[in-house]
Amino acid sequence: MNLEATPQGVVAGSVPLFAGHPARDLLPIDGLQRIISAAWGDGGVARFLNYGAEQGNPQLIDFLVERMNRTENLGISRENLMIIGGSTGGVGMITRHLTVPGDIVLVDAPSYRDALHIFRDHKLDMRSVPIDDEGIIAADLECKLRELASKGERPRFYYVVPNFQNPSGITMTRERRMAVIELSRRYGFAIVEDDVYSDLRFAGATPPSFYGLAGGQNVLRLGTFSKTLAPGLRIGWLIASADRIAEFVESGMLRMGGGANPFSAALVADYCRSGAWEAHVEWLRGQYRRRRDMALAALESSMPAAVEWTRPAGGYFIWLRLPAAVYVDDLESRAQEQGVYFASGKGFYVDPADGAHHLRLSFSFVSPPELRAGIEVLGNLIAQMAQ
Amino acid sequence: MNLEATPQGVVAGSVPLFAGHPARDLLPIDGLQRIISAAWGDGGVARFLNYGAEQGNPQLIDFLVERMNRTENLGISRENLMIIGGSTGGVGMITRHLTVPGDIVLVDAPSYRDALHIFRDHKLDMRSVPIDDEGIIAADLECKLRELASKGERPRFYYVVPNFQNPSGITMTRERRMAVIELSRRYGFAIVEDDVYSDLRFAGATPPSFYGLAGGQNVLRLGTFSKTLAPGLRIGWLIASADRIAEFVESGMLRMGGGANPFSAALVADYCRSGAWEAHVEWLRGQYRRRRDMALAALESSMPAAVEWTRPAGGYFIWLRLPAAVYVDDLESRAQEQGVYFASGKGFYVDPADGAHHLRLSFSFVSPPELRAGIEVLGNLIAQMAQ
Repeated sequence: MNLEATPQGVVAGSVPLFAGHPARDLLPIDGLQRIISAAWGDGGVARFLNYGAEQGNPQLIDFLVERMNRTENLGISRENLMIIGGSTGGVGMITRHLTVPGDIVLVDAPSYRDALHIFRDHKLDMRSVPIDDEGIIAADLECKLRELASKGERPRFYYVVPNFQNPSGITMTRERRMAVIELSRRYGFAIVEDDVYSDLRFAGATPPSFYGLAGGQNVLRLGTFSKTLAPGLRIGWLIASADRIAEFVESGMLRMGGGANPFSAALVADYCRSGAWEAHVEWLRGQYRRRRDMALAALESSMPAAVEWTRPAGGYFIWLRLPAAVYVDDLESRAQEQGVYFASGKGFYVDPADGAHHLRLSFSFVSPPELRAGIEVLGNLIAQMAQ
Repeated sequence: MNLEATPQGVVAGSVPLFAGHPARDLLPIDGLQRIISAAWGDGGVARFLNYGAEQGNPQLIDFLVERMNRTENLGISRENLMIIGGSTGGVGMITRHLTVPGDIVLVDAPSYRDALHIFRDHKLDMRSVPIDDEGIIAADLECKLRELASKGERPRFYYVVPNFQNPSGITMTRERRMAVIELSRRYGFAIVEDDVYSDLRFAGATPPSFYGLAGGQNVLRLGTFSKTLAPGLRIGWLIASADRIAEFVESGMLRMGGGANPFSAALVADYCRSGAWEAHVEWLRGQYRRRRDMALAALESSMPAAVEWTRPAGGYFIWLRLPAAVYVDDLESRAQEQGVYFASGKGFYVDPADGAHHLRLSFSFVSPPELRAGIEVLGNLIAQMAQ
């Protein structure tokens, strides 16, 4: 079972702390209904229903370009953006387009599980670099690159979730981003920036994107409406150089056959243009912040002293390090007996053994009482097991 | 410009006889609205909006399995079917999964342009075999296979649009299908059956599918709602052996990140389960038959004697052969001057030169008066050019 995508697979009455989904009560169901009704009412719905251009819905492209230029001063034009069917599908597209089997790609340790799955099945040679509270450790990255260069090898790209990372919740600092860009130029690799959580910051601003810091040079940046609107619509976007976008749009290897989901995309475009999306994102920030606070408070009161965890400033996830005596496999089976499910750390590493004492909790999907109860169960189990 | 997918790219007032789209007045706009309203009314809409399983919407899978077993006695179960984002995307998925660059694939001459584009960009070695009014010429196919075998080579698969082929409108006979299956077993290649038009038969029945005739063995069959419901929903399906479907669902190379368009798929599932889709298909058959009849009558009255064309028993397309003195490139530029656009034959062949005297007309998208007027313009131009 793909736990990332199917919480419905879980036993009724259980607490799915693994699900990287928005909770049902955080989906803007009424707002979307108003948009759909209006589209049908004004007869414009035919444009929802036929084939579209491969680059995607033009109104949605224009909206995203304007927003990104307004909020980030990004300086992009419509040639720099295409609509895709979600960001994970985008990672697949980029991988197909930029790599051949055997190519080296760099990933964080830990990194997003579905991306590792994609790279593995494309038979790529994944090399991981550890992260700390500021993101990838630049000195370790440089060592890895020098080592590769000494053998005449070079990575094709570095894949990164820069903000509120899945699974750790960590945001890479501006300094680290600059260091990575500098290395990417020196050693000649692209940066694939999977920026799915940046809109869900709980306060302040995230650092500028890799795309922005690099002036767009050799960066491919993914975004999505899955976390801030509704995953089932399967609409995301890719920002890159105009040449790169044109290649993607024209490529028979990436052919969507009429653009990314014209029906959903037109609905999303109308929703965004009405102003509803940005208001909804603002509201969501408060909702997820409250859940994050509750999760951190529950961890504080439930966890034995030897457990460590991250304090994310946005997004969906908290990353736990268990005491050395506690193995995540054991904890997982005992927790499941009590109906509590989480994402084992092992899935987030190139070498699963590196995650033997880690786990990811998601505070996005379950209700606040379930969140507290689930964390309490885990705290008790860990306390018993650590003795 | 991708003419297959963007009729909106054409100059206003022109006659787009190239567009393989349903006409706007053939989209079931009111029926879809009823389904959407009902889903919002009963509060079940949350299931439209979150991630789904990678295999696709379970209700839609069950509906398609039941229908195919009922109407074709196909004997499949839910393990044999997955939901995909349209059939062209499905051709891409199959190609990624079954081939590596340099592999040989067999195609008809002519064949579906977007499929050739996909195969070309995957760097496959395409070999084409001519068709006649009964489909692929089995003796020619056998010669090609013997020739390959003598060099120790063998094709990975044969790609075919079996019913009302795009671009020719031709349906392969049962006998030819059996001959192909026999050869596929002897020479060890798969059959990729892109069956997008079979529901749009104007009378009687189509021959049994390759999948049915081969008992499912080594056949991958694609279907779609794009021609019988609405392309913008981007929902199709793939039927294959349970092992093959499981491979596709699990593969990181094909990962959709939450299944094919959960929102559209749930809408399509509700529409189908209400009985509306099968009624709509029945109605569409009459509508497209009327357009086909009108197109054939216009060809009869407008074309010089030396022009030949097919008489499709379903689908969207008529295929024309021009007199030897008339080159399609010349005709295309003269027709465009008069605002009439068609699909040049050259795009449908591995070697474009083979299509220098052919063109495809689509009777699905334009209005009946435009259809007649467009064909009249072409008839007059060909008559002038043939002199």
